[in-house]
Amino acid sequence: MFRTAEIGRKIGKTDFEEIAPPLRIELIELQQRLRAADFPAIFVFAGVDGAGKGRTINLINEWMDPRWIVSRAYGPPSDEERERPEFWRYWRDLPPEGRIGLFLRSWYSRPVLDRVHGRSDDGGFEGRLDRIARFEQCLAADGALIVKFWMHLSRDAQKRLFRKWEADPHESWRVSDTDWEHWRLYDKFTEAAERTIIKTSTGSAPWHIVEGEDQRYREITVLTTIRDALVHQFERAETRRRTARALSERRAANGNGADGEPASLAADLAAATGRERTIAPPHQPSVLHVLDMRPAVTAKEAKKGLRKETARLNSLYRQARTEGISTVVVFEGWDAAGKGGAIRRLTAAIDARDYLVIQTAAPTDEERQHHYLWRFWRHLQRAGRVTIFDRSWYGRVLVERVEGYAAVEEWSRAYAEINDFERDLAEHGILVVKFWLHITPEEQLRRFERRAEIPYKRWKLTEEDWRNREKWPAYEAAVNDMVQRTSTRTAPWILVEADDKPSARLKVVRTLCDRLEAALSDPGHPRCPPV
Amino acid sequence: MFRTAEIGRKIGKTDFEEIAPPLRIELIELQQRLRAADFPAIFVFAGVDGAGKGRTINLINEWMDPRWIVSRAYGPPSDEERERPEFWRYWRDLPPEGRIGLFLRSWYSRPVLDRVHGRSDDGGFEGRLDRIARFEQCLAADGALIVKFWMHLSRDAQKRLFRKWEADPHESWRVSDTDWEHWRLYDKFTEAAERTIIKTSTGSAPWHIVEGEDQRYREITVLTTIRDALVHQFERAETRRRTARALSERRAANGNGADGEPASLAADLAAATGRERTIAPPHQPSVLHVLDMRPAVTAKEAKKGLRKETARLNSLYRQARTEGISTVVVFEGWDAAGKGGAIRRLTAAIDARDYLVIQTAAPTDEERQHHYLWRFWRHLQRAGRVTIFDRSWYGRVLVERVEGYAAVEEWSRAYAEINDFERDLAEHGILVVKFWLHITPEEQLRRFERRAEIPYKRWKLTEEDWRNREKWPAYEAAVNDMVQRTSTRTAPWILVEADDKPSARLKVVRTLCDRLEAALSDPGHPRCPPV
Repeated sequence: MFRTAEIGRKIGKTDFEEIAPPLRIELIELQQRLRAADFPAIFVFAGVDGAGKGRTINLINEWMDPRWIVSRAYGPPSDEERERPEFWRYWRDLPPEGRIGLFLRSWYSRPVLDRVHGRSDDGGFEGRLDRIARFEQCLAADGALIVKFWMHLSRDAQKRLFRKWEADPHESWRVSDTDWEHWRLYDKFTEAAERTIIKTSTGSAPWHIVEGEDQRYREITVLTTIRDALVHQFERAETRRRTARALSERRAANGNGADGEPASLAADLAAATGRERTIAPPHQPSVLHVLDMRPAVTAKEAKKGLRKETARLNSLYRQARTEGISTVVVFEGWDAAGKGGAIRRLTAAIDARDYLVIQTAAPTDEERQHHYLWRFWRHLQRAGRVTIFDRSWYGRVLVERVEGYAAVEEWSRAYAEINDFERDLAEHGILVVKFWLHITPEEQLRRFERRAEIPYKRWKLTEEDWRNREKWPAYEAAVNDMVQRTSTRTAPWILVEADDKPSARLKVVRTLCDRLEAALSDPGHPRCPPV
Repeated sequence: MFRTAEIGRKIGKTDFEEIAPPLRIELIELQQRLRAADFPAIFVFAGVDGAGKGRTINLINEWMDPRWIVSRAYGPPSDEERERPEFWRYWRDLPPEGRIGLFLRSWYSRPVLDRVHGRSDDGGFEGRLDRIARFEQCLAADGALIVKFWMHLSRDAQKRLFRKWEADPHESWRVSDTDWEHWRLYDKFTEAAERTIIKTSTGSAPWHIVEGEDQRYREITVLTTIRDALVHQFERAETRRRTARALSERRAANGNGADGEPASLAADLAAATGRERTIAPPHQPSVLHVLDMRPAVTAKEAKKGLRKETARLNSLYRQARTEGISTVVVFEGWDAAGKGGAIRRLTAAIDARDYLVIQTAAPTDEERQHHYLWRFWRHLQRAGRVTIFDRSWYGRVLVERVEGYAAVEEWSRAYAEINDFERDLAEHGILVVKFWLHITPEEQLRRFERRAEIPYKRWKLTEEDWRNREKWPAYEAAVNDMVQRTSTRTAPWILVEADDKPSARLKVVRTLCDRLEAALSDPGHPRCPPV
């Protein structure tokens, strides 16, 4: 989940100085509008220490008018607070309509820390997250705009930062023993963070994971996200108003109720900054950009390794079959990334009665009449079997998103639906192993051209493949979001560098073996042995 | 919560025979429309054994066309099912677009029974309910219509029914040892049921509690509810379609995009049955109708009792003050029901520094700019204090509902918000004691007239009081719903028969004493003693 926030994204000084002044104008404009609006804006900041939560809040107060902003950070509860229900202090500080509330060490802080320090168990933690989700839902239903930022630093980056601060006499006060203690609990912290984000990232109160290492990058990211969220909220309110008016005018049989095109808020902002469009941050690399695409092993090593792993897979899957541990393998990837070849390497090691390969194409008539997950539920096999999906439910957030087959609300809520689905599988003991086969656009072009030349491969290449190529950046953004939102501890995405086919295939088979081995050697892993 | 389903509501044979045929036509009409619609309809039946779940499903299949209905009841999972995640079997059976699915012993059955038999703890139970809510949310977001019926019988009624069946050789097969075993667990069952309904009654998948003793009543209630739900779903779909079209037409600058008034589905149904309006069941008594309004005690007994209870309250509240158990008392009731007098009887027993009476009138400017619960959160007092609300957050589902100050969506979702709020209080150890002071319309009229005569009471009587009287039936329906949806084990509604003031005041003070005593003698009750 956090891998997408460890890319090393940066914004240079020149770019920053180019963007910052007009972005600031946009934000001031929006704040002025907000003052007359009938909803409050609530921005929550959480995440790793040192990832810039406090500084970002300071910047917002500097850039916008602090008279209309409430900033709050919560420490241990006061006497007054301890004598009331936990949420009393948050309710007390909620901003009224027209104002902005910035919350640091918010309602998330205690539940996460209690979990990290083992003061609450899984069930208790889930219950508190559920309570939070209901709290935010209650505010959002009433119209509040809620946006949450999870500021992230990798374990190493955090260590480097602390060391750097300690070395500087003017900064050393920033690092306490508690900070180092927290740093040692880093993995527990990110585990609790992941569960928090998955459980409380809702349509009406989404989380944004922000890479926190580069100050300029994180600031521009947070501020443009706030800008976009405000614009979107205003536009939704405006659409609601206009629709209501249009309907009531039609009811009054007044004929044409149109009163001109809705003025575009984005156009207003652009006019205010003297630009053509709203300010956009410079293009940033995705999680796919940091993959090392060179061959991981030589052809000879790959061949030898694959022979070994195939035998290993055969033995491991037989054991899993006996113990009733099922496996679901998902293959997604670019066209011509080699999904078919990788799948054949898996099936070569498994008895044909024990696996099923599901080709996910356009849904059948019957499938179209159900929820989009229905067609995947129905393909789950009995205990101990291996089900391989050649493309999968992730179509919803990939092709359906990019091609516009699913509305924004549909693919946005799909992340949570997919996480719930995979959690159902994992809790039943089913291993969920997800591969994204990545190739570079150049390698794809080479493969397309080769396909066009080889008669028995020509059928594989369609007009659509060429069209899809043009949408590469849109797909890449979708892949990045998918990895961020659905890579969980129990069902992580494995990004496979697939320019070199032998290396890719070896990685696929070996990863599956490793996951099977880990499950089989874990006595706590749920099993469902055949009766 | 279930008191509202123990009223003894009935529909006579003549009424039934008058209503049934046209209602059946309406349902057939709607089913035909549904076949062409792009959503499925899911109806869930749960509740007490013998409350007519199975028979109602049979009736639906008889009245409507069973070819487009899927009926499912789930027993212990098969081998096939055990080898897959718990929800696999439910997903498998979901109806496609255009069809109706009737679910008996559904996804609710195992979680509730496991809780009743102590096989899951509170946390585990909450987690499973949460899972269910997400499952239904996932389907509803995709367009599915979901309506759930909780069929209820009182403990005594269930016993009577079982005895009756046992005495009849043709029916005795209906009663098994398991049924009696479940009957003995009745209280645990309703406790789990209450939590289930509160947690999973959402805007998109609401529960309806149906009194199950009278067969004709429960059938007509379920079937008109289904009729209304279908009509509402069609109308929402139609509005969405028209709005989208209207907007796109305006965008295309086509001028007047109106295409006549939307045909009213209700009018169509009425035409099909040859009636003026859709079929309505005969008026039924509310939970207030079954109160015995005669004086519970003589004036002399009341006076003596009140002296005793006042002393008792003083001693109990002092102990609660020391131990840090706070109390929140809510007074709601009809105009002139005697709220003020009852409140004075409470405050007479409490040191003025330890209680606060909050008069809930129209919100202030500042309050208006916040969520409607904000103004009540801010009035929570420190540990050990007594806060008395003269009218309260229930205004949302009473006056705001009846007078149309809150939209349907707003007051509908308020039940869940209020339950969450009161749960927050209860989990912190705050006693929540809610009184509805009930008087008959005749008694209210007498009191109004007396007020008009007494100079120093005349100010109490306004034009609005007379106007409110005219809306008595609407208020009564709102009170019934309020008691049903927000009377919980931790914060039950106490209905006070208040035609006789002395009896009413005695009941109020005594009930508060009993609640305080129970909390103080429970070592597990959360306390927050002052430091």
